[in-house]
Amino acid sequence: MTKEIYTAALIIIGDEILSGRTHDSNTPWIAENLNEIGVRLYEVRVIPDDRQKIIKTVNEMRKAHDYVFTTGGIGPTHDDITAESIAAAFGVELELNDAAYGELLAYYKNESEITPSRKKMAMIPKGATLVDNPVSGAPGIKIENVYVFAGVPRIMQAMFDAIKHTLTGGKPVETRSVSCNLAESIVADGLAEIQSRYAEISIGSYPKYQNGKFGTALVLRGIDEEALAKATQEVADLVISLGEDHPIIA
Amino acid sequence: MTKEIYTAALIIIGDEILSGRTHDSNTPWIAENLNEIGVRLYEVRVIPDDRQKIIKTVNEMRKAHDYVFTTGGIGPTHDDITAESIAAAFGVELELNDAAYGELLAYYKNESEITPSRKKMAMIPKGATLVDNPVSGAPGIKIENVYVFAGVPRIMQAMFDAIKHTLTGGKPVETRSVSCNLAESIVADGLAEIQSRYAEISIGSYPKYQNGKFGTALVLRGIDEEALAKATQEVADLVISLGEDHPIIA
Repeated sequence: MTKEIYTAALIIIGDEILSGRTHDSNTPWIAENLNEIGVRLYEVRVIPDDRQKIIKTVNEMRKAHDYVFTTGGIGPTHDDITAESIAAAFGVELELNDAAYGELLAYYKNESEITPSRKKMAMIPKGATLVDNPVSGAPGIKIENVYVFAGVPRIMQAMFDAIKHTLTGGKPVETRSVSCNLAESIVADGLAEIQSRYAEISIGSYPKYQNGKFGTALVLRGIDEEALAKATQEVADLVISLGEDHPIIA
Repeated sequence: MTKEIYTAALIIIGDEILSGRTHDSNTPWIAENLNEIGVRLYEVRVIPDDRQKIIKTVNEMRKAHDYVFTTGGIGPTHDDITAESIAAAFGVELELNDAAYGELLAYYKNESEITPSRKKMAMIPKGATLVDNPVSGAPGIKIENVYVFAGVPRIMQAMFDAIKHTLTGGKPVETRSVSCNLAESIVADGLAEIQSRYAEISIGSYPKYQNGKFGTALVLRGIDEEALAKATQEVADLVISLGEDHPIIA
């Protein structure tokens, strides 16, 4: 049995995002890569490095969505509490993973180099499997439908690429856009009328404000390519009828 | 009675963020501006343009935090459903707001220009007050501890600036950082020892990976400036003792 719509949630574990110090760039990357395989990023939660908050959020999200991805908190330092929090969320113990320990040994060459902090990176929830980290020491973790990734974008992307082929999705959502120099309120009535005739297409209107002038990006999304093409043409015709000379259709 | 810690949640209402098309830049701006007045951004939720999801999220967040900010979905188009969803969350009706209607009239000059779509921007939840929008037509809304802002960063920032002086906060969290070229796992044990002696300071360790080399940013946060200065000095001494020649202390 195949489903029509597969959804995912992203949980960003990071005091550094909530303090404003670090700007998240993982959300758009994951959104686009999930969409390519027909999985919709349905929600994102940015939460602090707080054990109880991580446990509660993971348990809520893993019941609500096909896939859950977490980023951040899997390193060797005292503030890296994701693995132990995930174990607690699933009600299992952390245990030394032989393969992860072997990778640490291969990386650091000598057992005496495996300090308690480094050993922590080989402790994973019982029942979890490893996600390869081709960039640095700490592997990612997969337990049921939850994928635990690093927060550093380059490492997160490598981990996602390593498991991407194992994810099941539906039909990817296709996107078209019509950009114009008209204010939103000029197109609103006509746009609502088009939307009312295309239930399967979602039409979004996003105002832009640049160089003291208003403009609007009209974005159409759907999995039915024929309906999407027809609706896009109607939106383009609408903005032209309202006085737009050069709508940019993409 | 003054509290020690004030918290806020940010709810980003936006299919365009979840599709990956638009990159959110409101989170770091709001985080920094809240911190200046002693309010901590405790969590961020990015949710779709879905009425039930907005209602549920707003009701959860407004009970959990001192302040809730929403961005997105307050314009004139069919996909702008924030105001009606906020009204539903509070169990009140939407009503035509005289002041908002007056602003629309002033902006569009003539009553015949107030199309149904434009009039929608003057419909606000019963009991709410307006937040001035000095940039474009649609005002923001305040109802109890919930602030409903535009999604366009320039407009959101103007709305925040308009209400900033009305927010109550505690002592702002101060931040110091020590950047070094050591891998996280080298500093981990010593860092945990320092953290164990400074319960009131939160020490975060953030790996960097640039030009094929690892580095680590050690970030210290707290409201006690003296403790913060002492802990920062200890962290700097630690990385120097571990072989770092030029830690960057900021």
